[in-house]
Amino acid sequence: MAHTDVPGNDFTALFSTLADDQDSYLKKDSATYASVVGRSFYTQILPSDSIALGWSSWAIHWLRRVPMPIPDHVEISHSRDEEARRAYARQAAADWRDFVAFRGRELAPGSRLVVLTVGLEPDGSSGFTTAFDAIMSALAQFVDDGIITADEVRRMSIPSTGRDEKDFRAPFAPSGRFEGLEIEHLEMMDGEDRFWSQFQSDKDDRAFGANWAEFLRTSMFPILAAAVDDDADADHDRDHTGTRRREFVQQLEASVAAQLAAAPAPMSIPLAMVVLAKRRRSA
Amino acid sequence: MAHTDVPGNDFTALFSTLADDQDSYLKKDSATYASVVGRSFYTQILPSDSIALGWSSWAIHWLRRVPMPIPDHVEISHSRDEEARRAYARQAAADWRDFVAFRGRELAPGSRLVVLTVGLEPDGSSGFTTAFDAIMSALAQFVDDGIITADEVRRMSIPSTGRDEKDFRAPFAPSGRFEGLEIEHLEMMDGEDRFWSQFQSDKDDRAFGANWAEFLRTSMFPILAAAVDDDADADHDRDHTGTRRREFVQQLEASVAAQLAAAPAPMSIPLAMVVLAKRRRSA
Repeated sequence: MAHTDVPGNDFTALFSTLADDQDSYLKKDSATYASVVGRSFYTQILPSDSIALGWSSWAIHWLRRVPMPIPDHVEISHSRDEEARRAYARQAAADWRDFVAFRGRELAPGSRLVVLTVGLEPDGSSGFTTAFDAIMSALAQFVDDGIITADEVRRMSIPSTGRDEKDFRAPFAPSGRFEGLEIEHLEMMDGEDRFWSQFQSDKDDRAFGANWAEFLRTSMFPILAAAVDDDADADHDRDHTGTRRREFVQQLEASVAAQLAAAPAPMSIPLAMVVLAKRRRSA
Repeated sequence: MAHTDVPGNDFTALFSTLADDQDSYLKKDSATYASVVGRSFYTQILPSDSIALGWSSWAIHWLRRVPMPIPDHVEISHSRDEEARRAYARQAAADWRDFVAFRGRELAPGSRLVVLTVGLEPDGSSGFTTAFDAIMSALAQFVDDGIITADEVRRMSIPSTGRDEKDFRAPFAPSGRFEGLEIEHLEMMDGEDRFWSQFQSDKDDRAFGANWAEFLRTSMFPILAAAVDDDADADHDRDHTGTRRREFVQQLEASVAAQLAAAPAPMSIPLAMVVLAKRRRSA
């Protein structure tokens, strides 16, 4: 079992979980072995024809690089800036093509790769719309209050993108095959908002807001906070976060939690599942 | 290429070096792939029959666990305590046997495993004698000065051991084979003291002491410092080291550097190289 992530990932935590968790596959099958590869998957990172089954979830929506700052929003699909949208679309297309090409080399003939990632809404957005509305509203308020500057907000760009069916199929046109792979299954679906399901049963609006705000703090706020100028002489903790960034994250979480609690609504979560298959070599 | 170390190792530093160093094998051979396994090698950590060439250096001298505290020294081969010496010898024998057995499963038929580790001096010590003399002298002085307690010194034990030819051969007796492996080459040798070679040319006694003290601080002092009771309310840095432990390490480094600078002499560094070969399956 080869796990892959960028070099900065906390692999010690992964190995500790694999060793200690009672549900770890290492405990359930003594003929299974764990390894990790700390390299970006936008290149070949495993030997050719070596993988029997691939699984990628919540990863390929992260672009290889930030194409350019998004002038009017923090998330590209909610932006109206045509130049930024084109730059992100180009990067997203190149990243998906490279991801498929390198996986095509690594997969063994006859194997499959399952990809779960962010899809697109019918209106072309990557979803999470009420969350992004709350974030943008908080940022505007923070600028008014002098907590952050308009310049810092302009630098905030989340290098993430949803994709639709046409995006996933592009590298495979026109033959339906690319680097030995073909699309065996492609499904666009709506993700379940579990916090909303919980709210429907317990009617706890504060928990609904707090749950979503905590999820967003973990997944997105560090990227936004990186655009906040840090105190030059502040004590930094082990994440190299100074006081201004820490306070920004805390205030953003509080604001988003309050806004979502004030008007609970199901979150739009467009998802995509793609199953790629590598052909067996003809006999 | 599968690198292995205990889970707590800094794998991010390894992957960064592999990505950035101009001499990295990843830059020299595009058909080479890096992975890491964060598990103790005293169990099987790689698939059976999967490794074409194994290399282990400066690793197998670390015992799987501390068998018992060493009452009269910090390093077992310099101790005169018979009970401790027997306990360490038993652990060292079991660890070598397990190491060989699990590597025997992982190695592919026809492959080799090269092991470089600490040997033994003719007098049965694991060497580094002037270094350990300086350490013991510093610890005695620290107790006199009230910097640490005699109890803390008694808890200091380095779970490391040298081995001699008989130790390496033990699991292979009497047939010469064990878990599909045989000893193809076994060599006991004296390691070169590079700091001594440098001293012979530059006559800089302070550099000689400082170089050795820095090497010992990195390789051994954290283990000794773990026996120092930490300040309950001290600020801890990211290595979880409080003020008392940090000061202990600084003072120990200064004392050892001064002692070795005062009487420069070549360090005893007994080494062992063992090459194990796995037989090809008979046709």
